[in-house]
Amino acid sequence: MSRISESTVRRLSHYYRVLEEVAAEGQRMISSHLLAEREGITSAQVRKDLSYFGSFGRRGLGYNVEHLRAEIRGILGLDRRWRIGVVGAGHIGSAMLAYRGFGNQGFDVVAVFDASGERIGTTLGHLEVRDIATLSPKDALDMGVIATPVRAAQDVADALVAAGVRGILNFAPRKLRVPPEVALRTVDMTMEFESLSFALSQARAPRRRRGDGE
Amino acid sequence: MSRISESTVRRLSHYYRVLEEVAAEGQRMISSHLLAEREGITSAQVRKDLSYFGSFGRRGLGYNVEHLRAEIRGILGLDRRWRIGVVGAGHIGSAMLAYRGFGNQGFDVVAVFDASGERIGTTLGHLEVRDIATLSPKDALDMGVIATPVRAAQDVADALVAAGVRGILNFAPRKLRVPPEVALRTVDMTMEFESLSFALSQARAPRRRRGDGE
Repeated sequence: MSRISESTVRRLSHYYRVLEEVAAEGQRMISSHLLAEREGITSAQVRKDLSYFGSFGRRGLGYNVEHLRAEIRGILGLDRRWRIGVVGAGHIGSAMLAYRGFGNQGFDVVAVFDASGERIGTTLGHLEVRDIATLSPKDALDMGVIATPVRAAQDVADALVAAGVRGILNFAPRKLRVPPEVALRTVDMTMEFESLSFALSQARAPRRRRGDGE
Repeated sequence: MSRISESTVRRLSHYYRVLEEVAAEGQRMISSHLLAEREGITSAQVRKDLSYFGSFGRRGLGYNVEHLRAEIRGILGLDRRWRIGVVGAGHIGSAMLAYRGFGNQGFDVVAVFDASGERIGTTLGHLEVRDIATLSPKDALDMGVIATPVRAAQDVADALVAAGVRGILNFAPRKLRVPPEVALRTVDMTMEFESLSFALSQARAPRRRRGDGE
């Protein structure tokens, strides 16, 4: 769908956050060094990332905060609002509804669905939980969140795609099949723990055979 | 802490899942092609990743499933059990306690903490919610999960580090400061949405200026 790697997009998100902070402080220019201020990002990487988008800092002056912020906002698709439907009114679904930060970036959770008769009709956040069977293209959802048990995840993905959703955030620890035009991101908590257990194991056994895989 | 990139570790987690599946099906050998079966991984990448760890498939035969599985298990630190404390007994904390899958991979949630008098003493999953002020090195936690409001996140990180935790999974959308020997992973939901809005924007405006950032 795009030749820009997932890690580049994450770095853009990071730069955007830094730009928002410094804009709020009234700063007009920012150096690649300050934009890089995070473990694993070098200022050379920042300059490389931004040059892809045609943005070049000026030696000794850095980047114009407002200009760069508007540019990244456009690249990340944050210059419009996105309609999001959450499927699964359990713990994760409730967390999504409770978090107020999404709206600030243009992500509006406009519908929540479940398959359980006990949950349908109850209120979550400011929304009434609807029967997943009522999800349709009329909901005009851009993105869907799958926060259901694993066994339901593929059916829910199919229903979201049938309703015209083109981006899915999946919390179920299962590989889902979606058409190539649908973007899929998975948050796998076990994988996060594995990333930590890897780091802790390496720290304790620093002589272990290893290499740089990128 | 380690020269192996985050993306390599995630791919190892992916291979491990595939290996567990095919082992359960009784398969003895597996090709790099089958291990690669996921968007964005090529069989050349698989061979490269595994060669770093000294594992080489045999032409026409592939990799020995049990051998490779044991090897990756060791690399990811899944050959032992890890003691995890969850801080924050809200939606995300509840989701962590409710999910049964962690235990299968050696991740045991052994304690849950909160700062709210209303939550302390209540039961979450099989655990009693403890006052965060009682967290100490005696808990012998390996990892901590921060599932608190943003404003409390840094204090909680400090408390976890003081209690000897060496790996932190953070759900609060804030950059946390931890000592270099502590591994930190952040799950930022807004960043996940931004990755999707980026993909959807690019799909709709395919002629946008772009490059390959990696």
